Amino acid sequence: MTKKEILVLEDLLGTNKKTAENIRQALTRQGILTINLMSSPGAGKTSLLERLSEYLEPDYRMAVIEGDIETERDADRIRAKGIKAWQIITGGACHLEAKMVGNLFPEIPTDINFLFIENVGNLVCPASFDLGEHIRFVLLSSPEGDDKPKKYPKAFVTSHCLVISKADLVPPLPFDIRKAKEEALAINPKLDVFITSSTADTGIKELAEYLISRLKELRKNA
Amino acid sequence: MTKKEILVLEDLLGTNKKTAENIRQALTRQGILTINLMSSPGAGKTSLLERLSEYLEPDYRMAVIEGDIETERDADRIRAKGIKAWQIITGGACHLEAKMVGNLFPEIPTDINFLFIENVGNLVCPASFDLGEHIRFVLLSSPEGDDKPKKYPKAFVTSHCLVISKADLVPPLPFDIRKAKEEALAINPKLDVFITSSTADTGIKELAEYLISRLKELRKNA
Repeated sequence: MTKKEILVLEDLLGTNKKTAENIRQALTRQGILTINLMSSPGAGKTSLLERLSEYLEPDYRMAVIEGDIETERDADRIRAKGIKAWQIITGGACHLEAKMVGNLFPEIPTDINFLFIENVGNLVCPASFDLGEHIRFVLLSSPEGDDKPKKYPKAFVTSHCLVISKADLVPPLPFDIRKAKEEALAINPKLDVFITSSTADTGIKELAEYLISRLKELRKNA
Repeated sequence: MTKKEILVLEDLLGTNKKTAENIRQALTRQGILTINLMSSPGAGKTSLLERLSEYLEPDYRMAVIEGDIETERDADRIRAKGIKAWQIITGGACHLEAKMVGNLFPEIPTDINFLFIENVGNLVCPASFDLGEHIRFVLLSSPEGDDKPKKYPKAFVTSHCLVISKADLVPPLPFDIRKAKEEALAINPKLDVFITSSTADTGIKELAEYLISRLKELRKNA
């Protein structure tokens, strides 16, 4: 990168960080636990949210911000579950930024408990942009291969929680769950790891319980 | 984006385009057919190259430039097949640029027939950067879902060839090959489409024959 490019990028990240901090403080005051979901395209972010809603919605209220380059497809899937969803269409941009979340802020009901932000499907760029979330998820789907954490380290290093998805497809895939987990923990030992399948409804209840306990912590400290 | 950000981006793309044109002209003069492979992480780009080598290498010579954010894993896999490979580690950058290919140019043997450039696993950013290739491939693996072309249009609009990979995993996946193909052709009717599985060795021979016929055209017109 040229010096000019680096300066523009630093400006952008600095402004984003400030906006994200303001968003996080406001969400904390309102007791809304916010989760930023990152992954490659098609790793199962929307399916995970559909399934999680079945465990959370009976007792809690959730809402979803969907980030996509084009189409309202993901927001439509969430709305079909009776859940409030906004679609941010980035029109080419490869990640969400805090200001996009900030623009939606006036519309976010104050009585929800969980705000999920589904980022653009991209294992690289979203990792550089804090959206004001409390918890960052990185999903790794089994068909992608167990060699991904060290190849795409930033998404794993900056996340709090690794969700291995599509576990029902292993075997026959050449995906070693233990290896993927060990490699991710080698670069980020603080990761909480969940092995899930939205299709087979595996590990989703545990993930919902984890989120509920984190929500309780947030409220206690708010 | 701010006006300053837009200007920097336009500068970058303009410079990249000129470098790419120079690379393409040089490769054309040398009769080296060059293919830029784009896809999400884990869609099977390296496996496709491993398998293609079995059909191409008996009569032709190929070489591979591997683009990754970190690790030499992909280049090591290609080298294990006895094929010349260079690893470009982008150190965080989400795509390859023409100048990275240009920097390797002095090392590229003039007696090869095919130069494959495996881009960083990312279905978004690489689509904006011409690397000087003759043919651009976009891979879509069946586990990613058949709804991806319209969600990530630029990769499909700028490619010449759609390779649907991991076809052996359908069924039981909710992936309709016909639907994926139709959706991709709706946004880019000129796409040549191949249905492949590197594991089951399906469609690879046809893809190799397509590349050989494109190589012959290149030599005729050079």
